[in-house]
Amino acid sequence: MESIAVDDCLGRITAEPVFAFRSSPSYNAAAMDGIAIRFADLSEANEASPIRLLKRQYLPVNTGNSIPQGFNAVVMIEDVHQVTESEVELHMPATPWQHVRTIGEDLVATELILPEGHKIRPIDQGAMLSTGITEIKVQRPPMAHVIPTGSELIQPDQAPEAGNIIEFNSRILAGYLKEWGARATRGLPVVDDQDELKLAIKTAAEKNDIVILNAGASAGTKDYSAKVLAEIGEVIVHGVAIKPGKPVILAIVENTPVIGLPGYPVSALLTMRLFVQEMISGFSGNASPQPQMVEAVLSRPLHSSMGVDQFVRITLGKVGKNLMATPSGKGAGSVMSLVRADALLNIPAGSEGIGAGEKIEVEMLRSQNEIDATLVFIGSHDNILDLLANQLHKQRPVIRISSAHVGSMGGIMAIRRGEAHIAGCHLLDESTGEYNVSFIKRFLKEIPLQLINLCYRQQGLIVAKGNPKKITGFRDLACNGHIFINRQNGAGTRLLTDKILKEEDIDPGTILGYDHEEYTHMSVAASVANGSVDAGLGILAAANALDLDFVPVAEERYDLVVPISFLREKKMNIMLELIRTNTDFHENIITLGGYNLRDCGKIMYEQ
Amino acid sequence: MESIAVDDCLGRITAEPVFAFRSSPSYNAAAMDGIAIRFADLSEANEASPIRLLKRQYLPVNTGNSIPQGFNAVVMIEDVHQVTESEVELHMPATPWQHVRTIGEDLVATELILPEGHKIRPIDQGAMLSTGITEIKVQRPPMAHVIPTGSELIQPDQAPEAGNIIEFNSRILAGYLKEWGARATRGLPVVDDQDELKLAIKTAAEKNDIVILNAGASAGTKDYSAKVLAEIGEVIVHGVAIKPGKPVILAIVENTPVIGLPGYPVSALLTMRLFVQEMISGFSGNASPQPQMVEAVLSRPLHSSMGVDQFVRITLGKVGKNLMATPSGKGAGSVMSLVRADALLNIPAGSEGIGAGEKIEVEMLRSQNEIDATLVFIGSHDNILDLLANQLHKQRPVIRISSAHVGSMGGIMAIRRGEAHIAGCHLLDESTGEYNVSFIKRFLKEIPLQLINLCYRQQGLIVAKGNPKKITGFRDLACNGHIFINRQNGAGTRLLTDKILKEEDIDPGTILGYDHEEYTHMSVAASVANGSVDAGLGILAAANALDLDFVPVAEERYDLVVPISFLREKKMNIMLELIRTNTDFHENIITLGGYNLRDCGKIMYEQ
Repeated sequence: MESIAVDDCLGRITAEPVFAFRSSPSYNAAAMDGIAIRFADLSEANEASPIRLLKRQYLPVNTGNSIPQGFNAVVMIEDVHQVTESEVELHMPATPWQHVRTIGEDLVATELILPEGHKIRPIDQGAMLSTGITEIKVQRPPMAHVIPTGSELIQPDQAPEAGNIIEFNSRILAGYLKEWGARATRGLPVVDDQDELKLAIKTAAEKNDIVILNAGASAGTKDYSAKVLAEIGEVIVHGVAIKPGKPVILAIVENTPVIGLPGYPVSALLTMRLFVQEMISGFSGNASPQPQMVEAVLSRPLHSSMGVDQFVRITLGKVGKNLMATPSGKGAGSVMSLVRADALLNIPAGSEGIGAGEKIEVEMLRSQNEIDATLVFIGSHDNILDLLANQLHKQRPVIRISSAHVGSMGGIMAIRRGEAHIAGCHLLDESTGEYNVSFIKRFLKEIPLQLINLCYRQQGLIVAKGNPKKITGFRDLACNGHIFINRQNGAGTRLLTDKILKEEDIDPGTILGYDHEEYTHMSVAASVANGSVDAGLGILAAANALDLDFVPVAEERYDLVVPISFLREKKMNIMLELIRTNTDFHENIITLGGYNLRDCGKIMYEQ
Repeated sequence: MESIAVDDCLGRITAEPVFAFRSSPSYNAAAMDGIAIRFADLSEANEASPIRLLKRQYLPVNTGNSIPQGFNAVVMIEDVHQVTESEVELHMPATPWQHVRTIGEDLVATELILPEGHKIRPIDQGAMLSTGITEIKVQRPPMAHVIPTGSELIQPDQAPEAGNIIEFNSRILAGYLKEWGARATRGLPVVDDQDELKLAIKTAAEKNDIVILNAGASAGTKDYSAKVLAEIGEVIVHGVAIKPGKPVILAIVENTPVIGLPGYPVSALLTMRLFVQEMISGFSGNASPQPQMVEAVLSRPLHSSMGVDQFVRITLGKVGKNLMATPSGKGAGSVMSLVRADALLNIPAGSEGIGAGEKIEVEMLRSQNEIDATLVFIGSHDNILDLLANQLHKQRPVIRISSAHVGSMGGIMAIRRGEAHIAGCHLLDESTGEYNVSFIKRFLKEIPLQLINLCYRQQGLIVAKGNPKKITGFRDLACNGHIFINRQNGAGTRLLTDKILKEEDIDPGTILGYDHEEYTHMSVAASVANGSVDAGLGILAAANALDLDFVPVAEERYDLVVPISFLREKKMNIMLELIRTNTDFHENIITLGGYNLRDCGKIMYEQ
């Protein structure tokens, strides 16, 4: 524990109970503006025969003033009739101590103000100060130290070369350690050298209450955390049945717990939550925060990894009456999947999986209000969506767009399952040449909805700057060793690709990379930008963003599917109004290039 | 807005959208430990005819390593059969880019990471750093300044004389301003001088975004905030229809909003929540936090003050299935009433009041988990309860005791209304000489319960140190000008008082102060300690705590009433085990003096 001024103790945890030092108030105080009197003087007062008091019988008081010895009640100024400067008339009797805050009314000296182990709020500071307590004993927060390990680590301000990894995990881990109540520090990365690692761990263990090692806990050729820990301390656990996070290490060095976390940020954070958060609460004598659980409906089936406790990142959406939970399919290396996650689902070891439509309990990572104010967008990706999300958040900070990019058909199926408020799609019906409507009639025929245009946009082959391989169309990709990158099944862009291949009578088998699928325009463009592929079909905005060349292939229509039932919701109205009327938003889109807004916001079809 | 290092931006609000600077990963990276290969080399591989690769055809990789140009898939180490040092055998074909994190898989350069107006979490810092962003623009928090006013104000480390008020309001107000996102500063108290006040306000208004004036907004002779504000700026509102908090002032000085708050801490804080919290959210571009509402059942009727919006402090208790809401009866000067409050109820102007048993929506001031883990104690006050609350909190920080001291009968009625888990009572039945049982049979006959003894304790007249008035019993108080202080109707101590008066044939009308009621032993003792009364009936512990003398009158039994249905709850079990077995707790009680624990924890009666 340590002593601290009450003025500086906000958010700290009491190390011993706090008892009132003086009584509050410490004297009998007027609770109203008026006059102090002796109640006995007024015992006969009434409307018919008021009583007059002379100057020595009363004393004007303001709220908070002391009631001098002898006086024992206050009459409110509203009930006092000033007859002359030195005489008042009163029409009612008074009760003893009326409108007086008697000594100790709020707190009596020696009374308990705060128990031990209480997290101090501003009002608690006020209560302590009001009784004259200016210094208290609080828990010293546990000292936690994070050691990043690996020769491949560089600092965020260094430009990464192939094989380098930016050292950001320690910042995430230290940030949460602080939020949980620890005093967290970070070390510089330790290179892959067993002696240096030993030295770093021993030094940290001597000076801290908890040491976090990240990473080196896995099975790679340079993962020798466990070996090193066994040599300088005791390894208690190596490997736990959880996913992600399996290779976690729990060890003791110099009587200090050392926790070896996996390297992937999602795995590292989830395992730290499991094994370290409780430990910090224990050190600081505070109740460990209880997870905020909420009931939701799982939108698609989840298989369990038998034998391990599985943690699944979840997107939540209040879609109609239901809180729908959609699992994120991203790997443990995806920081953004955690930035976007609204909740976590634990599938316990031994579970046989969870079916679509089943009720589940998930741990919320955002507040219920935030979730309620979130528009769930599922469907095809377009760069406009980032602009829309930002513009909306700027205008109405409370409204958020959560978007999952799973292609046009994925969006339509999400509307059918009640997972999403809006689906974005650009599905071309080859037989009619029309966009989206026939797919809606086929897959969403039971659902009253509006199809609202967002934009028309150019699709084309994204190729390297200067188009060094002189690609002019799909024909140039067939049988010539150029590597293509495809979009996933169900994506509108995939339909367009297949339509063109069919029209031009090109066998997909002759296109190298046809089987390698990406999920967004931007990832297609990124693959071209780094030279791992030569071309991919996508939108101009994606090519522009990464300074690539673009070979136009077609203009396509991109619409939003919105069930009628959600049109009544305020958040939806605000978004639609923004799309239809916000000129900043429109100008930003035009600046991206490749877009036409001639029907933006127009209802293209209704059922 | 201001620029800030991403490493230091935890909890700040983005001032503009943050887009990825580089793609993450910025190269194709191994997602597993294993070997990098060309997938085409394995197209014919199967169990029957495995394929061997020579050293130049594969490259050992650890997770995170770069996949060099030419290679386009990774085979996990578990599936690699090392034949010789330079040759491996593989039994399965590979798919393109399997176990590879392709460039931009997590974040593509230019992709939106965070919208404008987002409060930054550690995971957000990680996402920004992972793409090489090390500095961002964040909102400059609004500067708020609190000016305490009043010549009567002293600092908390000064000993208050009669009429002095400890200046703690500004600390409470500045604390909440900080929690809401402002940079809050406090000024020294300004004395009651109009010129000094003008100077302080003008100086603060020039340097800050919001100025809080506390107090001087009321009708007292020295309350000239409104006058001063009108002279140096514009008063927009003076007085709003809310309770507490009516005399609030909203003014503009030097283009800066100045808010004059009432002097009572509860009024000041509630009005600041209403008028300033939203303002700070507006300044910082953050969504204003939504109040966490919860449905509860009102335990006793509340009358409305017609024409004003009323805010009532509420104690919540999860008693059985119901969340019971009990209004606190304390005045706006009681800081402790806010320390103890679990929720706030708003009774809108125009409401005709709310009946007992009605469902209400209240704003939670604690988490649902904290409420669920709270034992609601209502009944007679005993100092042991503070020790119990502290010992329990120390042992199990998650369990809290919320106690309301309303006398023994109040406790019994609270059990009947389902408001409380436990009632503490010491009700003497004059006809049988037995404690508590006849009252239970009469008022709680439908409820299966246990009556569990907590202690026996001495009751006596608490008198000044040295007993200067030589008081030996109630007989000495009658008709001799000594001032008595009574306990409220329903209190066990009041029953004892009335029984003794009856036995000794003393007319209550002859005892001065018989009508002045206090609600706890400690407040009775405090009144004796400060000389405003000469004697009051109470327990030895209260007299000892304030170094007073004690004239014993009787030993009485103090029991806990616990409905059987709550005996199954874990929190109740933990508390009862503590009472029965914790020797520290017992020793602390004995140290107080005047207690006997011969039946502590024993079941005295069951129905």
